[in-house]
Amino acid sequence: MKKVSFAGMPCSVAQSLEVIGEWWTLLILRDVFLGVTRFDDFAKRLGIARNVLTARLDTLVDNDVLTRVPYDEARGRYDYRLTDKGRALLPLMTAIRQWGDEWIIGEDKAPIAVEHTTCGHVSKGVFTCDHCGEELTTRTLKARRGPGFREPSLLPPS
Amino acid sequence: MKKVSFAGMPCSVAQSLEVIGEWWTLLILRDVFLGVTRFDDFAKRLGIARNVLTARLDTLVDNDVLTRVPYDEARGRYDYRLTDKGRALLPLMTAIRQWGDEWIIGEDKAPIAVEHTTCGHVSKGVFTCDHCGEELTTRTLKARRGPGFREPSLLPPS
Repeated sequence: MKKVSFAGMPCSVAQSLEVIGEWWTLLILRDVFLGVTRFDDFAKRLGIARNVLTARLDTLVDNDVLTRVPYDEARGRYDYRLTDKGRALLPLMTAIRQWGDEWIIGEDKAPIAVEHTTCGHVSKGVFTCDHCGEELTTRTLKARRGPGFREPSLLPPS
Repeated sequence: MKKVSFAGMPCSVAQSLEVIGEWWTLLILRDVFLGVTRFDDFAKRLGIARNVLTARLDTLVDNDVLTRVPYDEARGRYDYRLTDKGRALLPLMTAIRQWGDEWIIGEDKAPIAVEHTTCGHVSKGVFTCDHCGEELTTRTLKARRGPGFREPSLLPPS
C-alpha cells in the first residue's frame, strides 16, 4: 500500500509530517537528541530493520534535518549530527516526551528527567507567548489567516 | 507488512507515538484543534479513506484523546471532542506547526497565524523552563535518569 503524501497540502503541520511523521523517525531523532550518532548504535538501540533505518536516515539527511560527518573516511563511516533545522525540533521532542510522561506513563515513573543546566533544576518545558510570556492554552489561542493563506478550506467556517 | 509496536518500550516518546504517531493522526488532531468535530468533515477536508479515518478516530477515542458526544442520538451521530488529555497536545501541535512555518514553508508564507487572545498579538510559542523562565535549548538541557528509569540502554554511555 503506497502511503498518501502530504507534500501538496498547504499546511505547515502536513509539511512537517512529510519529513518527520513516518513510523520510527521520531524515535531515531530521540536517540540523536540523546547523543547517539552511529548507524549500528541506532540499529541496536531501536531494534529496527536496517533497510528501514537506512531509508529514514536518508530522508532526514535529504531534508537537512541531519548531516553526515565522516569519522573514518577510508571506510566510508560517518556520524549523524543534527543541523540547525534538526536542533529546532527540540520543542517538538520535548512536547512529545512530556505528554507521554504526564498522560501515559505517569510523571512519577518517567524514565528520563531533563536538567536545565542554566538554573540547575529538573525542568519542564512550558509553551509561553513570545509577546506577553503567559502560558499558551487552547482557550486563549485563536487561529486566523496567516500571510500565506490561500486554501479556503483550511480554516473551518467561523 | 505489520507495523512494529512501540508499546513495550520504556520511553515516553515511544508511548506517545504509539497513540498519536500513525500516518494521518496528527492531521486529524490538527483539524480537531481548528474546531472540526464531525466524521464527514474530517473525510472531506483531509481526503482520507473512510476506513482509515474510522481506525484513527477509534484509536484516539480508545486512548482517551478524543471523546464522542452525541448530537443526533436517533441516528447515532456524534461530535468528536478533545478530552483533557487531548487538549494537552497543544504544545506538540504548536511545535509541529511552528517548525514547518519556520523551516519548510517560511514564516512569511505561513497559511495560519495564531492569535493569543490574552494579549491580542499574533503569538509564537516559546518553550521555556518552568523554574527560571529562560528559553530551553539543546545546549542547556541534559538528559539524566528519571524516577522510573529501568532501562540501562535508554541513556547513551556518558
